[in-house]
Amino acid sequence: MRQRKRKGAHELILAHPEYVVTDAHEHRGTWKNYFGNSNPIHIEVGTGKGRFVYGMAAAHPDINYIGIEIQESVLSIALDKLIEEPLPNLRLLHVDGSSLTNYFEDAEIDQVYLNFSDPWPKSRHAKRRLTSSTFLDVYKEILRPHGEIHFKTDNQGLFEYSLTSMNNYGMEFIQVWLDLHTSSFEGNIMTEYEEKFSSKGSRIYRIEAKF
Amino acid sequence: MRQRKRKGAHELILAHPEYVVTDAHEHRGTWKNYFGNSNPIHIEVGTGKGRFVYGMAAAHPDINYIGIEIQESVLSIALDKLIEEPLPNLRLLHVDGSSLTNYFEDAEIDQVYLNFSDPWPKSRHAKRRLTSSTFLDVYKEILRPHGEIHFKTDNQGLFEYSLTSMNNYGMEFIQVWLDLHTSSFEGNIMTEYEEKFSSKGSRIYRIEAKF
Repeated sequence: MRQRKRKGAHELILAHPEYVVTDAHEHRGTWKNYFGNSNPIHIEVGTGKGRFVYGMAAAHPDINYIGIEIQESVLSIALDKLIEEPLPNLRLLHVDGSSLTNYFEDAEIDQVYLNFSDPWPKSRHAKRRLTSSTFLDVYKEILRPHGEIHFKTDNQGLFEYSLTSMNNYGMEFIQVWLDLHTSSFEGNIMTEYEEKFSSKGSRIYRIEAKF
Repeated sequence: MRQRKRKGAHELILAHPEYVVTDAHEHRGTWKNYFGNSNPIHIEVGTGKGRFVYGMAAAHPDINYIGIEIQESVLSIALDKLIEEPLPNLRLLHVDGSSLTNYFEDAEIDQVYLNFSDPWPKSRHAKRRLTSSTFLDVYKEILRPHGEIHFKTDNQGLFEYSLTSMNNYGMEFIQVWLDLHTSSFEGNIMTEYEEKFSSKGSRIYRIEAKF
């Protein structure tokens, strides 16, 4: 989701290395030490303003979460929440999704969340979609064997593409939801974007799939 | 789709073995001889009143079609059309979808169509759905290598199930449509059911996938 530039976002992020990890490459392979426990590590790629990952971290204290976002303005809003009410099991990373193998070792991550990723609707930009084979390669490398991706979006074209992309990659579908908010799915934590667009009548699509 | 019983349907079917093939098991392995050409053979499993398969056969004279339907009342309506306006490349079969290996040899069929199949919404009836692994086993056997299934439905639950079932079976998705009628898909031939329910606002889902 595009966002107006927020003044001071850059400085705020740099001022809080205890929440937005700046030396992430140094923790490659030792994130469990960094968190100080052996709990599973879940990441959200494209964490935006962080409402989802913050809500998940608050709801699941026995899981460590890392929210990854390249846009400073939205990441700084996620950071606001952590400053106001810190959570020991949530950290943020200001890096690009395509570079994750620099920060995580093979099989270091237990689960990947993708929420309302940029649809990149033009065919020539398909490789930039976070469910393209380019990114699936990355997730597969850093995920444990049979690690799962949980993906939701309101974008029909992106979901159609993602079903085919994940299938063609050889991923195994666990479950598909074609209208999440009218389903019996429990424990859904809405993103800012999800709340806004679902209240306007957009359907939310969701898939859980594993490598 | 359920249909009121039609009086005389049974007798009508028996009276027209030139359209509703009654000795289908005798053509097992030799359907190309039966049609008198070497054109590809496409089947529709659950052909209902036959509007789709009739429209396809009329539009594609270089393909042979076989409409398969176990309910006599609806099959007799499909038969009405063939009697009124015969097509050399369309025949009907009054048999059950699960028994197709009795009537077709390995790799004898080029493509399978499934349209608005019974959703069998109860979990304990999942095996009866025409996209369950039980039926995929059958289609795989009678289809040529990498043969395709083209499936459409307005039933959200059945489509969610089918995406997972076909994926878990190892089928390769070619394309997925989450709202066929607003898409750029060309050459869609509507079933009676499709016209009725899409005009009431139901979305039509579609997938093309291959073994």
